[in-house]
Amino acid sequence: MKQRRSVGSAAKANGRRGRPARPEKRGSAKLNLGQLDRHLGYFLRRLQIWVFQDFIETLRPMKVRTAQYSVLLIIEANPGRSQAAIGERLGIERARLARLLHELERRKWIARRANGSDARSHSLYLTTDGEMALAKIKSLAERHERQLMCHLGAKRHKQLIDALREFG
Amino acid sequence: MKQRRSVGSAAKANGRRGRPARPEKRGSAKLNLGQLDRHLGYFLRRLQIWVFQDFIETLRPMKVRTAQYSVLLIIEANPGRSQAAIGERLGIERARLARLLHELERRKWIARRANGSDARSHSLYLTTDGEMALAKIKSLAERHERQLMCHLGAKRHKQLIDALREFG
Repeated sequence: MKQRRSVGSAAKANGRRGRPARPEKRGSAKLNLGQLDRHLGYFLRRLQIWVFQDFIETLRPMKVRTAQYSVLLIIEANPGRSQAAIGERLGIERARLARLLHELERRKWIARRANGSDARSHSLYLTTDGEMALAKIKSLAERHERQLMCHLGAKRHKQLIDALREFG
Repeated sequence: MKQRRSVGSAAKANGRRGRPARPEKRGSAKLNLGQLDRHLGYFLRRLQIWVFQDFIETLRPMKVRTAQYSVLLIIEANPGRSQAAIGERLGIERARLARLLHELERRKWIARRANGSDARSHSLYLTTDGEMALAKIKSLAERHERQLMCHLGAKRHKQLIDALREFG
């Protein structure tokens, strides 16, 4: 998970102290970003890839993907809500969310109950198995977040999450 | 491109001034993020999706994807470098970069020339057609970046790019 950091560090060490680096690394570190350097999207994407790779790696024991984790947390925090409300809140497209919920039901982590007021709509809940699984998942996800904090530095982590949370 | 912004605005307007909103919107805006609220990755991903959608939409006249644009800018800023150096700098996996370069060659935007010092390696350049295409692409990409700046606010845009650029 440290490739980018080490490339960056190698480049800095190289520039500042003339410490030798492997030729490929030194060669690539020298490449100029050109106008890419002005695009926030480029930097967002690079960090987001790091985050997702670290998440998948850290959460491997529970075999859970980021979108599944988000849905479990939203159901935990808002029991009894509909698929439509969850999809809208997380910005997950309808068919994709249906597949994702089906997979969580297959693992017996969530249950749907018919909604009294609207026969077409179902309310979503965590099962007892789901609650136990989510407790383990959350503890691994906290480890992931601490790793991200180390990767960025605690100050930058806070600055980024504050700026984005206030916005999002 | 304004869905998230308008959902947020509706929720705010709703909370602050009690202005009526459509029931689904109001219902979904109320959902609590739970522990998701502590994960930088969640907020990064939401913004990154907005950025990519806006990029694709704004750049539609030139039919160019974000990774193709990044590669064109890197070749422009570093003419004559190898595929390996570009892949390393951008963090693009070898096979994927090969497909991407093949597509750019097919459009006659880039050319490979054998590298005198290493017969296995090729140097990459923009063609004249590539330079002309990139001029149009850059002007659309600037429009995209201005849209992103409006979406986030200029201050937050600067704050985010400074924090991430310094890091990345």
